[in-house]
Amino acid sequence: MSSPPSAEHERLAAERQASLVKPRGSLGRLEQLACWFAARQHRTVPRAITPSITVFAADHGVARQGVSAYPAAVTAQMLNGLANGGAAINVLARAVNAPLTVVDLGVAGPGPAPPGVHDERIAPGTHDLSAGPAMSVAQAQHALDVGARYARDAIARGSDLLIAGEIGIGNTTSAACLAAAMLGAEPESIVGRGSGVSDARYAHKLATVRRALAREAPRLGALELLADLGGFEIAAMTGFYLEAARAAVPCLLDGFISTTAALLSCMMDGDVRDWLLASHLSAEAGHRATLGRLGLEPLIDCGMRLGEGTGAALVLPLIQAALRLHAEMATFSEANVDGAA
Amino acid sequence: MSSPPSAEHERLAAERQASLVKPRGSLGRLEQLACWFAARQHRTVPRAITPSITVFAADHGVARQGVSAYPAAVTAQMLNGLANGGAAINVLARAVNAPLTVVDLGVAGPGPAPPGVHDERIAPGTHDLSAGPAMSVAQAQHALDVGARYARDAIARGSDLLIAGEIGIGNTTSAACLAAAMLGAEPESIVGRGSGVSDARYAHKLATVRRALAREAPRLGALELLADLGGFEIAAMTGFYLEAARAAVPCLLDGFISTTAALLSCMMDGDVRDWLLASHLSAEAGHRATLGRLGLEPLIDCGMRLGEGTGAALVLPLIQAALRLHAEMATFSEANVDGAA
Repeated sequence: MSSPPSAEHERLAAERQASLVKPRGSLGRLEQLACWFAARQHRTVPRAITPSITVFAADHGVARQGVSAYPAAVTAQMLNGLANGGAAINVLARAVNAPLTVVDLGVAGPGPAPPGVHDERIAPGTHDLSAGPAMSVAQAQHALDVGARYARDAIARGSDLLIAGEIGIGNTTSAACLAAAMLGAEPESIVGRGSGVSDARYAHKLATVRRALAREAPRLGALELLADLGGFEIAAMTGFYLEAARAAVPCLLDGFISTTAALLSCMMDGDVRDWLLASHLSAEAGHRATLGRLGLEPLIDCGMRLGEGTGAALVLPLIQAALRLHAEMATFSEANVDGAA
Repeated sequence: MSSPPSAEHERLAAERQASLVKPRGSLGRLEQLACWFAARQHRTVPRAITPSITVFAADHGVARQGVSAYPAAVTAQMLNGLANGGAAINVLARAVNAPLTVVDLGVAGPGPAPPGVHDERIAPGTHDLSAGPAMSVAQAQHALDVGARYARDAIARGSDLLIAGEIGIGNTTSAACLAAAMLGAEPESIVGRGSGVSDARYAHKLATVRRALAREAPRLGALELLADLGGFEIAAMTGFYLEAARAAVPCLLDGFISTTAALLSCMMDGDVRDWLLASHLSAEAGHRATLGRLGLEPLIDCGMRLGEGTGAALVLPLIQAALRLHAEMATFSEANVDGAA
């Protein structure tokens, strides 16, 4: 790690919070946020953040098992949607004025990656993880490296708060396998409705996850686990978080898939944890458990479960507000206001 | 009511939500928000909101009882702070680009209202509500009228989402009395720490509220209750909400004081409820109960308890994001994306 969070700047920021014209603690989580960035920017008054959003897309062989409410072809269609600016994350990126980069790690579309989408295709989707390993270890390492490169690119372009999002039909099945294996949890507590599956399809999804986990997952290390049960976009997100932490740049997590990738990155390097910030609590079943393992508290809970980085993008204005309050509010002495009795 | 919410436009907006390129329901509360505004703007695709913030300030005779962590003089000092742009709500109003109007209903300062603050002083603070009525019924009516006028002004200047905030040392004591009386609740469940009082001061605050309620509150109608236990700024907020509803313009509530005033306005006119939207859940004890009586669910819970309208201002970007997603996302057919199986 080039420069770990500074406890001294966190303390100085907390002192400043206590000096601002408001009852002590009355800005709640916003005060903690300002101090969190102070520690990571090594500044008592952290500067406004410059966010960026990178969406990783890939297909999943397990989608052929019918674990999603949508056919696998929807990943390629949604990738076109992102290229055309009509997806939810396009709208939110415009709303918060954050640059959006879209990366195709292996969408099984009929043609090449759409214009504007970065083509980093490894294969036309993973293998079916319920029958065997989703990818080779070499492919997993390659996807990690691609993700790391996009984190470096975002940082090089001036971003100091990175968001990774994803699209990929079947990826809540992959993430549920990974999370259940890492947490040692019963699949029932982790497998969710994903894109909104019916009861029958949910039972099938759960059985598929059980079948995958019965293969060999519990005995694997992080990289092998990722290859066995992961997806190309999940691997890229994992590499993205690893690299951001190496560069001492914070990442704002999104939902269940994102947090599963973050948990993997922390298995690979425990120092990553210091650079992760939770945004929202997803409605997807396993999200609370993965956040809990990371010891992260989400800022908002709006019942979202869309992915693409949308939950993270939505809370950016809250973070910017916390930093502006910290920087711009008057102190008791500046404002000639009496302190607490 | 000039034009009640349109169930037809709410239905059309829900239809549009179901057509957007995302799993059905995956934007959670944001979908409901878009439909809520559709019903109130009578448009399937509601336009972006133009918010405004009005802060009402007044002093409370009960502050002499030592129910706050701060001396009563702090109200006047904070009013200066707002005039100088250094208070939390000034920062947030700038962040969301919302006009901020500050109204002095009766701050017991040494001089006139500061420059830029609207002087609507009724008296230099209310009487001590633990010893007798806080104000006359005529004063309460006057404060209601002032609040209504500021709502009309905000609407006339083009605002279509109104926020009322407050400052006033002692006003959580007044609001706790009002809320306990309206809810028929035990004071312990409603009286909170306000600006952050010690255990000893909290016990004293609770005893003060009990003494006030023992006078005659349970037998009073809304206007008399407001005069007996209220404050000038709380009365102005009540009138503000009443008038906004009469004009069919939504209001975004803030925290405990704001919601208590909203509850009073609904006692006076049940139709007001249709125009109220909750923003955040305050850390102040009584807030959940008052929101619950109104049947409102807050959007966020960040542990804030500052007042001034800060919680409401903080969630404005979430509301704007919900409306932009509703307006700008592509539909499945526009994007050539297959629907759910």
